[in-house]
Amino acid sequence: MTVGIVGTGLIGGSFALAVKELGYTVVGYDASASHLKRAVELNIVESAASLSKLAKECELIAVCVPVDVVANVCEQLLTMQTSATIMELSSTKGVLAKALRNHPKRDQLVLTHPMAGTEFSGPDAAVHGLFKDKTTVLCDLEYSAPERSQQVRKIYEDIGMRCVEQSSEPHDLHVAYVSHISHISSFALSLTVLEKEKDEAQIFNLASGGFASTARLAKSNPDTWSPIFAQNRDHVLDVLDEYINVLASFRTALIKNNFDEVHALMSRANAIGPLLP
Amino acid sequence: MTVGIVGTGLIGGSFALAVKELGYTVVGYDASASHLKRAVELNIVESAASLSKLAKECELIAVCVPVDVVANVCEQLLTMQTSATIMELSSTKGVLAKALRNHPKRDQLVLTHPMAGTEFSGPDAAVHGLFKDKTTVLCDLEYSAPERSQQVRKIYEDIGMRCVEQSSEPHDLHVAYVSHISHISSFALSLTVLEKEKDEAQIFNLASGGFASTARLAKSNPDTWSPIFAQNRDHVLDVLDEYINVLASFRTALIKNNFDEVHALMSRANAIGPLLP
Repeated sequence: MTVGIVGTGLIGGSFALAVKELGYTVVGYDASASHLKRAVELNIVESAASLSKLAKECELIAVCVPVDVVANVCEQLLTMQTSATIMELSSTKGVLAKALRNHPKRDQLVLTHPMAGTEFSGPDAAVHGLFKDKTTVLCDLEYSAPERSQQVRKIYEDIGMRCVEQSSEPHDLHVAYVSHISHISSFALSLTVLEKEKDEAQIFNLASGGFASTARLAKSNPDTWSPIFAQNRDHVLDVLDEYINVLASFRTALIKNNFDEVHALMSRANAIGPLLP
Repeated sequence: MTVGIVGTGLIGGSFALAVKELGYTVVGYDASASHLKRAVELNIVESAASLSKLAKECELIAVCVPVDVVANVCEQLLTMQTSATIMELSSTKGVLAKALRNHPKRDQLVLTHPMAGTEFSGPDAAVHGLFKDKTTVLCDLEYSAPERSQQVRKIYEDIGMRCVEQSSEPHDLHVAYVSHISHISSFALSLTVLEKEKDEAQIFNLASGGFASTARLAKSNPDTWSPIFAQNRDHVLDVLDEYINVLASFRTALIKNNFDEVHALMSRANAIGPLLP
């Protein structure tokens, strides 16, 4: 089988590496000529091709592009009269799902979200094993042909992922809670420290593992994350309001010197422990 | 040299393990009889002793107890007419420094804060190599006898740490920025998700590395952290207010659909990258 990768960055590149390990031929396309060249140099994809060549030659095409262009790229591919299964791997689903719901070839498309990533981006960020033992969400499967869904599910299972099914609406709410708010929390932590702690040497000297792990996501690419927040704005705002409210509870308890309440808040927060991977 | 460890939890236990590797004899005391028994069982300390026995037999005593009792323990030890150097390793310094500033034997005491830790606590949390390649802050050295400071600096360097000097006031402000706010951010993230995401299976399924790393500190022990926040309340409140303000900037930009501003905030936050360990 020949697999096409559209978008050879962190996700597309890592997916290409995983699929190559299964023995498939992997051909890549990227709107950025320099990214595509780099993906070939790094041997992430075996060769570069145009979008129309991918549509003609591949049995499966994985669309791994930013959320603000994914609907357009999927539509272009479907319009090319390809017989390939199109799977897309972007981080939000609501806008995309609505945009393509009534497309005459919608059943050729499978919406997926592999819950894996790092704070890095581009072909150089692609890593072996990124998806292993993680979960992929398959969204709105009632709109995809069963044999297409089955093909996509199989390739995810073959690269070591668990598959769960979910509609696009609850998916977008869940990811606001378990991914998007973590990024805002981390970006804000970085800005707080950078704005107040003018002595950069102090950050470097004193930042221990705790600060590094909570601020790590602040290295993430704004070009990736700005469209994600735009597409999932309403859910992200709900979660952000709740997060600010919880922080305000800590603040009130501190102001009142109510350390029983501070203790109680932390004890309740401890319940997350067994749920973390 | 015989080194005494008062408090055989995460920090005391890990310090004991590091010092044992230097070939010193390590004797332990803990106010919790079960912790002390466990520390001996785990071979973290070679034997258990009373506080007064430690004071009599050790050349160096490391006080590794919660911040709300550290001043009292240091005072007890100094009162015991020991010739030992007393070093303490707690997380905040202002209250302690003031409490003991005029003690007649203050020059026997060295205030330190090794910037290392994990989200776990107790003797079972003690780990080899916790301090290696990390930074220790030596505080208010003008109040310690030079030979005592030198002895403490040497043992930190011998276990692989960098030493920096700082007064207790700026120390407490810096740690509010590079440690305490990270913990509140993480506790609050956990509570936000737990309160809204009632379906625990979703958390477990979907929580990827990003969420896990930002929420990891929410496993931390409230018994350790409540007194830290109490002792450093004013600095923590300043930083928490700033953090909430930054989050409010994200919120305002999202509400106004101003994604150029969202992008700009994230781009500025990216500057933390090269400063992280």
